[in-house]
Amino acid sequence: RRGWVALVGAGPGDDGLLTRRAAQLLASADVVVTDRLVPQGVLEALPGTVTVVDVGKTPGHHLVPQDEINRILVEHGSAGRGVVRLKGGDPYVLGRGGEERLACERAGVPVEVVPGVTSAVSVPAAAGIPVTHRGVARGFTVVTGHEQIAAVPPGADHTLVLLMGVATLRETAARLVARGRPAGCPVGIVERGWTPEQRVTLGTLADIADLAERVGVASPAVVVVGDVVRLAHAWPAAVRAEAVA
Amino acid sequence: RRGWVALVGAGPGDDGLLTRRAAQLLASADVVVTDRLVPQGVLEALPGTVTVVDVGKTPGHHLVPQDEINRILVEHGSAGRGVVRLKGGDPYVLGRGGEERLACERAGVPVEVVPGVTSAVSVPAAAGIPVTHRGVARGFTVVTGHEQIAAVPPGADHTLVLLMGVATLRETAARLVARGRPAGCPVGIVERGWTPEQRVTLGTLADIADLAERVGVASPAVVVVGDVVRLAHAWPAAVRAEAVA
Repeated sequence: RRGWVALVGAGPGDDGLLTRRAAQLLASADVVVTDRLVPQGVLEALPGTVTVVDVGKTPGHHLVPQDEINRILVEHGSAGRGVVRLKGGDPYVLGRGGEERLACERAGVPVEVVPGVTSAVSVPAAAGIPVTHRGVARGFTVVTGHEQIAAVPPGADHTLVLLMGVATLRETAARLVARGRPAGCPVGIVERGWTPEQRVTLGTLADIADLAERVGVASPAVVVVGDVVRLAHAWPAAVRAEAVA
Repeated sequence: RRGWVALVGAGPGDDGLLTRRAAQLLASADVVVTDRLVPQGVLEALPGTVTVVDVGKTPGHHLVPQDEINRILVEHGSAGRGVVRLKGGDPYVLGRGGEERLACERAGVPVEVVPGVTSAVSVPAAAGIPVTHRGVARGFTVVTGHEQIAAVPPGADHTLVLLMGVATLRETAARLVARGRPAGCPVGIVERGWTPEQRVTLGTLADIADLAERVGVASPAVVVVGDVVRLAHAWPAAVRAEAVA
């Protein structure tokens, strides 16, 4: 029997946002290799016969190195097992899916990539923030830290989505203002999107770092910068109406 | 009985990439309002009792204006019907979901937005192109035409995804080079992604417009610009290996 590996996006925190192909593959997997951003409900629904390998953290809370994850996938796939590598969001959006795919290809293990609902778009949506909106934003940029911040379009009409951006939030906000974004440009932070513990913090480039510190914003969180933040559900209807006036 | 409207992303061309929440809502809908980018298999699977309204084109091939779509959604929702507004990809990625949501909110019709697998990420993936890849691209920008092209990061290590970018491809490529992207920056065009008719055209900023013209590239297509294009399945393994060396 020939083994296989599927690199599968599990979407954000709600298991209803899993795709049908993902569900089908999970139902036929022998091994599921998972990380900390996968919706809990998806793992709880797995049959007891499935071996679950959690590479999100080890007992000492260290991440498993990428090379070791690649090795685990290839080992199980080469041994004739069906392996689902389950990732929060989408495998190719800062998810290192490409590296895992190449490792399988090099080892001659059949590998399939199954896109998921990316957190970059869906977590803002959970707070009512559309990454694009006619007359408000015609495009968006997704980055991790602050490295490419200097080069993104400076207008508040281009949405900036930061994944893993909480730790560098103060520096990022300052750099965006230095580069030309208005200090009053709205910013939204959505923690634990699509879970019952979702929390939304709204501010501007000028005050968001202080606000985040005050309420104790923590990962995982998605940060959205741009005029589209004014459409968030948390605002009064009048603010939202003005955003698209 | 209270009506409702759900703005639902159907993902790209493969009905396996529909989410479970989308499938659930379709199963309980009275009316499905659809457009031309929705996977055909999803519509074919609807029970015969569902009223399907196609706003993707009228008999004369004109698009139904957005105001008219909003009116249709509100009318059915207000009449106590369950309405799924089904869109290709994700409702908030250049899909005008925000406008439809606001129209329902203004009319007092309960409205829910269900994110989908966005074509901006998943259609490149169908060709083996990851929008991000360690050491190759740390972020990506999604835009429609050429309006914001001048402001996107110029390096080939930032991925640019163009939706509805076929008509303006020659101008876009020229502007990117004028702005500082190398003329040899790889470009991939994926037509009809995730369907049996998928076609991939690979080139560079210097030659992609000529290539596209020669083979007759047509919408719907997703254009990807950046070094990640070297990871496309269509390249020999040696090219892909070099891309991540």
